[in-house]
Amino acid sequence: MHEEKHFTASDLVRDVVIGMSDGLTVPFALAAGLSGAVSSNIIIITAGIAEIVAGSIAMGLGGYLAGKTDAEHYQSELKREFEEVESVPEKEMQEVTEIFREYGVSPKLQYELAIELCQDKNKWVDFMMRFELGMKRPDVNRATKSSFNIGLSYVIGGIVPLIGYFLTQTPKEGLVISTIVTVMFLFIFGYVKTKLTSTKPFYGAFKTVFIGVLAAGAAYVIARLIS
Amino acid sequence: MHEEKHFTASDLVRDVVIGMSDGLTVPFALAAGLSGAVSSNIIIITAGIAEIVAGSIAMGLGGYLAGKTDAEHYQSELKREFEEVESVPEKEMQEVTEIFREYGVSPKLQYELAIELCQDKNKWVDFMMRFELGMKRPDVNRATKSSFNIGLSYVIGGIVPLIGYFLTQTPKEGLVISTIVTVMFLFIFGYVKTKLTSTKPFYGAFKTVFIGVLAAGAAYVIARLIS
Repeated sequence: MHEEKHFTASDLVRDVVIGMSDGLTVPFALAAGLSGAVSSNIIIITAGIAEIVAGSIAMGLGGYLAGKTDAEHYQSELKREFEEVESVPEKEMQEVTEIFREYGVSPKLQYELAIELCQDKNKWVDFMMRFELGMKRPDVNRATKSSFNIGLSYVIGGIVPLIGYFLTQTPKEGLVISTIVTVMFLFIFGYVKTKLTSTKPFYGAFKTVFIGVLAAGAAYVIARLIS
Repeated sequence: MHEEKHFTASDLVRDVVIGMSDGLTVPFALAAGLSGAVSSNIIIITAGIAEIVAGSIAMGLGGYLAGKTDAEHYQSELKREFEEVESVPEKEMQEVTEIFREYGVSPKLQYELAIELCQDKNKWVDFMMRFELGMKRPDVNRATKSSFNIGLSYVIGGIVPLIGYFLTQTPKEGLVISTIVTVMFLFIFGYVKTKLTSTKPFYGAFKTVFIGVLAAGAAYVIARLIS
């Protein structure tokens, strides 16, 4: 019941918020850093867009391939459980009883449960995957869509901090507009992101702004020092 | 048993590999993109270092704060389960029986298990957290260390693609050296990363190189077009 609630409300929103807050943070900080080191908005915009391309591919395609790896990992563990259930059934049955011992179930019931579960090998293996290994069957379609949404949201988020540099003539002016716009967006996204899982959305909003501003400030100081 | 194996071997290695492969990919692609658009290695190095600072803070501090949020989320769900166990115990008991029904356990045994599990409220709630909600008690210390390791590994990984630009005079030369060095590193890290969870490490190595090269190529083309 809780699980369903977690899922329905937030899948797309969650992806968008993950991609967008990262997209807001890193290109913002990069642009801020360069603002202290170069004299042309074109260079900052070029660097910002190169970063957006790189980051969205790393996040989107990287996430997609990681999802496929998870699915393969699940399949290989599943195969191993099937083999173990065939080759060392007593050991696997004992593992079932151990899971329930932890929760104070009596030896008699542990034993009865192991007997019942082990009658159907498919269900037995499913049970071991979830209760012994804590692995959920990965949803590959969902992972694919999710990666795409995250990558695209990174792009959209990344464009926000660059707006200031499009609208102005110098990096200094660009940085001012960029900071105002990005902090506003970070606040909103931090709020939405936290609202999904917690009752303290303002706290989350400040945290998100804090990470962005700290990253931008640090990048600015270090870029100044080396340029 | 499997779980233990997953844990002991790989915690630090996993963190290092996560941070380092991302650190290798995004600064590499950013530098490659700028190589097609600017004429000075200093600008590329400055942008690269600004990105490393931004990315490592976003990944490290972001990961740390996300870990704290997970811990808070766990606590709030835990509190809710305790409340539900107090206020609607019959409903929660029925949820226990439903978990077992899925796996073909007989109604009689479902009921007996529910009775036993529900005798100790702490264990009952622990059981619901893990088997109904699929939530593990987050290890906050581990999450803190992990974030630090990932952030630091991002920095170290990010410096690798910049070496080429330190050693040469022009972006073109820098790009050649950077690509050779980074592809080598990506291959090694892809190999190690995949080795941890899969039996096809070469496949993983090629996948990791592929993401890096695609990100760098795309950043290069787009930066050339806009500059």
